[in-house]
Amino acid sequence: LLSVVLARTRVTSPFAHPKIDVEKIKALHSDIVEDTVDMKIDHFNANGQSDTYPMRYLVNAKHYQKGGPIFFYAGNEGNVYTFYNNTGFMVNTLAEEYKALVVFAEHRYFGESLPFGDKSFETENLKYLNVEQTMTDYVEFIRGFRKESGLDQTPVIVFGGSYGGMLASWLRMKFPETFQGAIASSAPIIYFKDAVPEDGFYNVIQDVFTHNHPECSENIKKVAELIVSFKNQPEKIRSLQSMYNTCQAIETADDVDKITGFLYNAWIYMAMTNYPYPTEFLAPMPGNPVDVSCEPFDLTASKPKITSLLKKDSLFSDDELALLQAAADSVQVFYNYTGELACNDLSGSETPNLDAFGWDILACNEMAMPMGTDGKDNMFLPESFSYEAHTKQCEERFGITPQFDFALTFFGGRNPTFDFATTSNIVFANGNIDPWNAGSITIPVSKDTVTINIENSAHHLE
Amino acid sequence: LLSVVLARTRVTSPFAHPKIDVEKIKALHSDIVEDTVDMKIDHFNANGQSDTYPMRYLVNAKHYQKGGPIFFYAGNEGNVYTFYNNTGFMVNTLAEEYKALVVFAEHRYFGESLPFGDKSFETENLKYLNVEQTMTDYVEFIRGFRKESGLDQTPVIVFGGSYGGMLASWLRMKFPETFQGAIASSAPIIYFKDAVPEDGFYNVIQDVFTHNHPECSENIKKVAELIVSFKNQPEKIRSLQSMYNTCQAIETADDVDKITGFLYNAWIYMAMTNYPYPTEFLAPMPGNPVDVSCEPFDLTASKPKITSLLKKDSLFSDDELALLQAAADSVQVFYNYTGELACNDLSGSETPNLDAFGWDILACNEMAMPMGTDGKDNMFLPESFSYEAHTKQCEERFGITPQFDFALTFFGGRNPTFDFATTSNIVFANGNIDPWNAGSITIPVSKDTVTINIENSAHHLE
Repeated sequence: LLSVVLARTRVTSPFAHPKIDVEKIKALHSDIVEDTVDMKIDHFNANGQSDTYPMRYLVNAKHYQKGGPIFFYAGNEGNVYTFYNNTGFMVNTLAEEYKALVVFAEHRYFGESLPFGDKSFETENLKYLNVEQTMTDYVEFIRGFRKESGLDQTPVIVFGGSYGGMLASWLRMKFPETFQGAIASSAPIIYFKDAVPEDGFYNVIQDVFTHNHPECSENIKKVAELIVSFKNQPEKIRSLQSMYNTCQAIETADDVDKITGFLYNAWIYMAMTNYPYPTEFLAPMPGNPVDVSCEPFDLTASKPKITSLLKKDSLFSDDELALLQAAADSVQVFYNYTGELACNDLSGSETPNLDAFGWDILACNEMAMPMGTDGKDNMFLPESFSYEAHTKQCEERFGITPQFDFALTFFGGRNPTFDFATTSNIVFANGNIDPWNAGSITIPVSKDTVTINIENSAHHLE
Repeated sequence: LLSVVLARTRVTSPFAHPKIDVEKIKALHSDIVEDTVDMKIDHFNANGQSDTYPMRYLVNAKHYQKGGPIFFYAGNEGNVYTFYNNTGFMVNTLAEEYKALVVFAEHRYFGESLPFGDKSFETENLKYLNVEQTMTDYVEFIRGFRKESGLDQTPVIVFGGSYGGMLASWLRMKFPETFQGAIASSAPIIYFKDAVPEDGFYNVIQDVFTHNHPECSENIKKVAELIVSFKNQPEKIRSLQSMYNTCQAIETADDVDKITGFLYNAWIYMAMTNYPYPTEFLAPMPGNPVDVSCEPFDLTASKPKITSLLKKDSLFSDDELALLQAAADSVQVFYNYTGELACNDLSGSETPNLDAFGWDILACNEMAMPMGTDGKDNMFLPESFSYEAHTKQCEERFGITPQFDFALTFFGGRNPTFDFATTSNIVFANGNIDPWNAGSITIPVSKDTVTINIENSAHHLE
C-alpha cells in the first residue's frame, strides 16, 4: 500500500515509477522461471464464456524438495518482479528452511498481466479490476498449478505484504481448502469506513517522527503552516521554486498545495519505509531515513546552512528561512539522496504509469480507505476525508463509484474478535512503526491465529 | 433440487408448476410480513454502479423475543412461499424453542425476485444468475437487515434444504462472520464432476424402491425395456396413448422416450419425496408414496386388473399387458392421485414457468451435476452423462457454457475431510433414502460440524 496516500498529495506515486530493472532482477535471481497462464477475465459471468488473459507468474524451485509446501505470494499493486525482489525472507530464508516451492503471481491489471492489453485502462474495461476477480484468479491458478505439477496434496501457504497481505489473509479466510495457511504482513484489512479512526495512519507517522527527534514533527507542522500562509503573496510563492529546486515554476495558490504535498509525500514515504538499512525499494535512501531527515530540523543544535540564494531573499525572516531550508534538506533524503537529479519534478508527467493507475482504480471501487486528520494531534495540516469528494473524484476520473462498505461486509472486520473468531492458520505480522498498523490486526482474534507485532519495524518489512 | 433430474427426462418439472396458492399460504400464515429490498444486480462489477432489483423476503416475528437469534432461510429455486410453506420445523418448532426471528429470502430470478422483470430470461440478462451473486445478495441483505433492525450483534443461523442447503453450508463456510451457523438439509454439495460416482443418485433410488418391495424395481426395469422395444412398431407405439392416458398422440420413437421419461419422472420424484405422511409439496400424494406405487407391481400377489381397453388390444401378451398396466397404476400415485385430471399432459406447454427455467440455467452454468448410469445395478435404463452433450444443449438453449469445475474449486469438496477441515457450526442433515444423499456430507468433516443421517428420511424433509 504504497500509493494510496497519494490521493492526498496528488503527487504521482514514487512506487508508480518503480525504477525496477526486470533484466537486472532476473540476473540476480537466475532460479526464476517466468510463465503465463490463461485466466478468465470475468469469473462471475454466469454464461461461462469469458475471454481469457495471460496472467504472469514466477516459480523458484531452488530450495524445493519433495514433500515441501508451496509458498505462494499473492501479488499486489505492481510488477511482480518488484515484490519478488523485496521478499527475500520468504524466497530465501523460509523457503530453504521448509524446502518450499516458491510461486509469485502477478495481480491482474499490473505489470504485464493486462486483461485487455494496451486497452486495459479504458473506462469500459475497468470493471474487472476488483478484489473478488483477483482472488478467484489466484484460486484458479493454484488449482491448475497443483494439478499440473502433480502436487494436489501439497499444502499452500499464501504470503503477502500490505495490500498483498490483505489478499493473503482474505484468501485464507475464504478459501481455506485451497490455502492451508497465510502470512499476512502489514495488512490493514480493517482500515475501512467506520472501523478505525480516520487519523490512525497519520498518528502513527507522528509517533515515528517524534520518536528520536521530539522537535522534528513540531517543526514540520510549522513549516507547512508557514508555506500555506504564503498563498496570497505572489512573490513568496514564486520564491518556493528556487527553495525547493522544482523543475516547474511555482506561481499560484494551487502550486503552494503542490509544494506541501511534495514535502508531506517524502515524510509519509520515509515513515512507511523507515528500514534500518539502506534500501532502494522506492528510492535510494539511507538506513533509518526518518532520523536522517529529522536532523536538519534540529535548528538549535546545528543551525542549518542557509544557502546564499535564500539569504539574498529579504522576504523572509531568518527563522522562516531556517525552517524552509530545513524542510528542503529533509526531503532531499527521500527525493535525491544520491544527488543525481537536477531538479525535483512535481508534474508527474513522465510516461503514464499503469501500475499507479491500477491502484487508483482499486482505491476507487472496493479499497477506498478513508484517511483524514483534524491536524490537532499530529504534524499534518487538517484535511478531512470526504466520502462525497472521493466519490465525485472517482466518478469523474474513472466512471467508478466507490463501495465503502464492501470490504468489511464481504470479509468482516467491524468487530474483529467476533467476525474472525473462526479464522485459523493466519500470521498477522505488523511493525509498530508502520502507519498502516492503524488498520491491521494487532491483537489475537482467534485461538488459531498468530499476531506478531515487531518493535521498530516499518511497512512491508517481512 | 427437485427439477435437476429432468434434464434426463425432458418432462417439465412438476416443481416448476408448483400449484402454490400464495393467497392461501398467506392466510395460513398470518404472521408473515412480506417486503422487498433493493439489491444490486451485479455485485462484482468494479464500477460500483449496478442497477438494482427488488428482492423479496418474508419475516415472521411471532416467536421472536429479544435476545433470540435470526433464523434465515436461504431461498432456493422457486417461489419463496413454497419453501416457507414446507419448512414447518424451522418456522414453528425451532423458532419457538429458540425465540427466533424467522426470515426467508427469495432467490434472484425466482418467484417475484426478477432482476429484469419480464425480460429477466432473455439471453443477455442471464449472466447474473449464479451462485456468487446470490450468496452476495444474502450477505448484503443480512447486513442491511441487522443494521436497520438494530440487531447488529444478533447471531444468524442460515437454514436451507436441497440447493438451499448447499447455499446455506457455503454461506457459513465463506461468510462465517455473517452467518454464525448453518443447518443444511439434503444438500448435495459434492455432487459434482469427479467427486462422486455419477450413478450415486440412481443407486439410492434403487435402494428406496427395493426396500419394502423387492420385486418392484425389477418390474420397473422390465416395463421400461419393454416399452423401448416398441420403437420400430408403430401400432404398439400408438397404443401407448390410451394405456397411459396421455393428452397428446403418441406416434414416433421420440414419443416412446417421452413415455419412459414420463414414467421415470414419477418414480424419481416419489423417491425424493417419499415422506411418511400425505403431502402436497409437488403434487397431492399419500404417505410413503413409493410403497403405494410399488403395490401394482406385485404381479403374483394381486394380478392387476387389466382394463377392457387394454384387453381388446391383441398386440401384447398377457404378461406384457400386466406390466404395462402396473406401470400406469404406479405412476398414477404421483400424477393423478386425486383422480382430478382427465388426461396426462406430456407437452410441458402450459404457461412457461420461469422457476423451471431458472433452475435449468443454474444447472447450465455452475450447478451442472453429472448424473448417469450404466443401468447394471439399478432399475434405470442405461444413460451416460455426457459432458459434451450437456455443454452443447446449454449453449444452444441459453448461450451458456457449463463450468463443471466451479463448485468444487470455489467451495472445496474433492477431498471433504481435508477441504472442510476448518469448517465449523454446520449441521448436515440427510435422509438415507434421499437420492441426493449420494452427493451430501454424511461423515464428519471437522470437529466442529455435525452430521445427522436420518433413517428412512427422504429429500428436503427437515
